[in-house]
Amino acid sequence: MLLAAMTVFSLAASAQVAEDFKPATTNQEGKQYPMVNSQRMVRAQISAPQANSVKLDIGGVKYEMKKDENGVWTGESAPQDEGFHYYQLEIDGASVPDPGSRYYYGASRWGSGIDIPAQDEEFYTVKNVPQGSINEVYYYSTVTESMRHGYVYLPAEYYSNPTKKFPVLYLQHGMGENETGWSAQGKTGIIMDNLIAAGKAVPFIIYMDNGLNARKPGEQPMGGFGGFGGQRPQGAPGQGGQRPQGAPGQGGQGGPRRGFGGGFNFAGAFQDVLIKDIIPMVEKNYRVIADTEHRAMAGLSMGGMQTHSITLANPTTFAYVGMFSGGTFNVDELTDAKDFKKTNKVLFMSCGGKENMGVDKAAADLKGIGINAHSYVSPETAHEWQTWRRSLYQFAQLIFKK
Amino acid sequence: MLLAAMTVFSLAASAQVAEDFKPATTNQEGKQYPMVNSQRMVRAQISAPQANSVKLDIGGVKYEMKKDENGVWTGESAPQDEGFHYYQLEIDGASVPDPGSRYYYGASRWGSGIDIPAQDEEFYTVKNVPQGSINEVYYYSTVTESMRHGYVYLPAEYYSNPTKKFPVLYLQHGMGENETGWSAQGKTGIIMDNLIAAGKAVPFIIYMDNGLNARKPGEQPMGGFGGFGGQRPQGAPGQGGQRPQGAPGQGGQGGPRRGFGGGFNFAGAFQDVLIKDIIPMVEKNYRVIADTEHRAMAGLSMGGMQTHSITLANPTTFAYVGMFSGGTFNVDELTDAKDFKKTNKVLFMSCGGKENMGVDKAAADLKGIGINAHSYVSPETAHEWQTWRRSLYQFAQLIFKK
Repeated sequence: MLLAAMTVFSLAASAQVAEDFKPATTNQEGKQYPMVNSQRMVRAQISAPQANSVKLDIGGVKYEMKKDENGVWTGESAPQDEGFHYYQLEIDGASVPDPGSRYYYGASRWGSGIDIPAQDEEFYTVKNVPQGSINEVYYYSTVTESMRHGYVYLPAEYYSNPTKKFPVLYLQHGMGENETGWSAQGKTGIIMDNLIAAGKAVPFIIYMDNGLNARKPGEQPMGGFGGFGGQRPQGAPGQGGQRPQGAPGQGGQGGPRRGFGGGFNFAGAFQDVLIKDIIPMVEKNYRVIADTEHRAMAGLSMGGMQTHSITLANPTTFAYVGMFSGGTFNVDELTDAKDFKKTNKVLFMSCGGKENMGVDKAAADLKGIGINAHSYVSPETAHEWQTWRRSLYQFAQLIFKK
Repeated sequence: MLLAAMTVFSLAASAQVAEDFKPATTNQEGKQYPMVNSQRMVRAQISAPQANSVKLDIGGVKYEMKKDENGVWTGESAPQDEGFHYYQLEIDGASVPDPGSRYYYGASRWGSGIDIPAQDEEFYTVKNVPQGSINEVYYYSTVTESMRHGYVYLPAEYYSNPTKKFPVLYLQHGMGENETGWSAQGKTGIIMDNLIAAGKAVPFIIYMDNGLNARKPGEQPMGGFGGFGGQRPQGAPGQGGQRPQGAPGQGGQGGPRRGFGGGFNFAGAFQDVLIKDIIPMVEKNYRVIADTEHRAMAGLSMGGMQTHSITLANPTTFAYVGMFSGGTFNVDELTDAKDFKKTNKVLFMSCGGKENMGVDKAAADLKGIGINAHSYVSPETAHEWQTWRRSLYQFAQLIFKK
């Protein structure tokens, strides 16, 4: 969305802008900008005394900023949806992170993010309740023959009740994101601690990995995948100096590319890593109830599609399945899927209210063939993290309850 | 160091530059720039077609970059020390993170960092050995009356040996840094996993908190602290749009400031948080040997000074004490410190070879009054993370061994 911006807007000075801007909660400590007002407009500011042009690039639109007599540029966006958005600044043609914000991995880069206050933000706000932890781990993958990196959410009771074993949810990010997305932008640990403290979810472990970078030895990296939710790959033409990893030198053309249309398999080597490395590692290292009835998989967008294909290809491995903005299961593919139907206890499909993914109809159809299907549509949100925070909040209340 | 740059260098095109540049290990996935060559020079590159001036700002020096016909700017620094350095780009007067690097918290901001290959980098390289984890946690502080945030390193054996209890090291960052420094720049988890796997350190837990942001209710934030290791506070004059947290609005002058010369206590509210909140929380939530002989404190720079004052003020709480580039204990203050001397089992002081902190002499003097003092000087490094990675590597081998 960020990089697909084609239009340049300049908001005219207007009596309609509410001057109640406050620093964003996603700002770096002590930084006043960016700010958000009650109309959910974003105001950015940066000192660039010698610059000719500075723009705020958010939600697929670039907004011109204006320079004051001290060389400080300030400008506002149009109102944004509630929740989290990636954004950046453009200074004389250079797209750079805003030094005022914290940084998140999305749109295939570490860069600026901003959280717009939401009416329901309580559910992902840190509270003084029993706290689990988000654990950063490395493990050896026999599939990629390399050390890999992931995150594990352990609920508070994992520590306070040292003999208890727990179910596990395997939870995946979207295209252009990585294993940090669910804990940072997604606020997974906070959502779960609050849900468990309120008695709305049973305590379970969550494992989050990188669904994009798994490659078997000798495999080429994915160089390009255009046209997906507005997120462009590194190395896209015109992005100046960014080239796919492994491309030869400065003058090279980049390695072979596999576009979505060219046979890219959403699961690919990641399916093998998940089944052969990750699940055994989690079940060995943690106190896990290591059976199908206590194993779930879910993901957002591309991670939802991976969930779709991996749970279909491994129909007796996961009892609970969630697709957040990742499309739907359909009746045709499940009618004769006896193992999947016998194993599945909950099939959850969700999307944002501004997306049109047909999750309600799909769930109704699936119920007709005996699937315990659930759907959820996040009010007034698009293909973004507020949809997925809410989807996790809903899904977590449905699983491991028998 | 970063922001104290006063001089602008332009390296003349020179036959002396070795054209063997490789992408830095600290780059974002798939990003080719910045690069480092065998002379430890950094080459940065960014597309900024409309810019008038782009500089690479590293090691206290700004290096001019040059534009090619496509609007892409490229430039090199002088050779850098081995190890990790903060840096940034300056585009037409705007200091911004380099979109090619990963981001780290230091110099009072999230921004670019780069790792220069080091001859001894094996000790902080991820290997296929039993892996502990770095755990992100929140906890309620009775001192600040708020939720606080920290990281816990748990060794691999914490998971594989579920009844064993472990000693704990409380480990603090420096000025302008935060609770993420030791795990990200410091590579604490990797260093410890490798040391423990090699049998060089006993397994212990490490707890890392924020030593700068602890404030009792009603206390003002620290607004300014100049002249410390070249790191300037947020809100320094001329930094454009950055103001101390809590300052009133856009036209305000910022809150009251407490400079180092004005009675700033390095320990301050943090001492209370550590003693009253953190240690009890760690000893309640984790399998800890909760006695003095199994409790250590160490820190780098300001964190070393905090260690100095906190361990002196709580002489029977910690048996092992480490100051990394944080000055020295001296004979005068310890000669009559009966409780401290009776409790202390190891007193470790270190610094970089380019610093002059007198740690060897201080250790020799302290041995003369019966202290088990150790010193370490990191070869060819300054007041930077390579010194502190090596210091942790040395200190960890000395503690909890009786």
